[in-house]
Amino acid sequence: MFDALKVATNSNPNAVAGAIAGIIRQEGSCEIQVIGAGALNQAVKAVAIARTFVSELDLICVPTFADIEINGLERTAMRLLVEDRTRRTLVITPGVVA
Amino acid sequence: MFDALKVATNSNPNAVAGAIAGIIRQEGSCEIQVIGAGALNQAVKAVAIARTFVSELDLICVPTFADIEINGLERTAMRLLVEDRTRRTLVITPGVVA
Repeated sequence: MFDALKVATNSNPNAVAGAIAGIIRQEGSCEIQVIGAGALNQAVKAVAIARTFVSELDLICVPTFADIEINGLERTAMRLLVEDRTRRTLVITPGVVA
Repeated sequence: MFDALKVATNSNPNAVAGAIAGIIRQEGSCEIQVIGAGALNQAVKAVAIARTFVSELDLICVPTFADIEINGLERTAMRLLVEDRTRRTLVITPGVVA
């Protein structure tokens, strides 16, 4: 199982899309973690591009908030679960029983 | 049928989430259009919040690029189709037959 893919403002969306495609082909799903608007922008672009790379699947993404700690400081990250639409995994979200 | 919901950098994610929830309950799906990283950030946060508002469904989003024209200038926007995971709509993406 891969850790969440960390995407940053200066990440190349095409390269990230390639990584997403590879992880999905191997694992069935891919989790991306970002902090900040610039990083999220690159991540969502990468998902749109990955949809064309993995065109045999219907890739969707499920955004959720995640509280993470960096150097002792609490930050709110966004997580994007990317997987085929027909694949159902346990997504733990308040109020949702998957 | 609603036009695509336009979300901007200064949009309130909670208010956008309420709009998404309302449109999805009425129409079954909701399309969001944004230009720029700040607006996309607010839109994705809104989808994460809307998932908790519409917890009887498993809301997912499908990001695609859209070329739009504003004041005669071509811009690349992002579109997010938000709908229940089990709802299949025709998504026209290069290389993907939905």
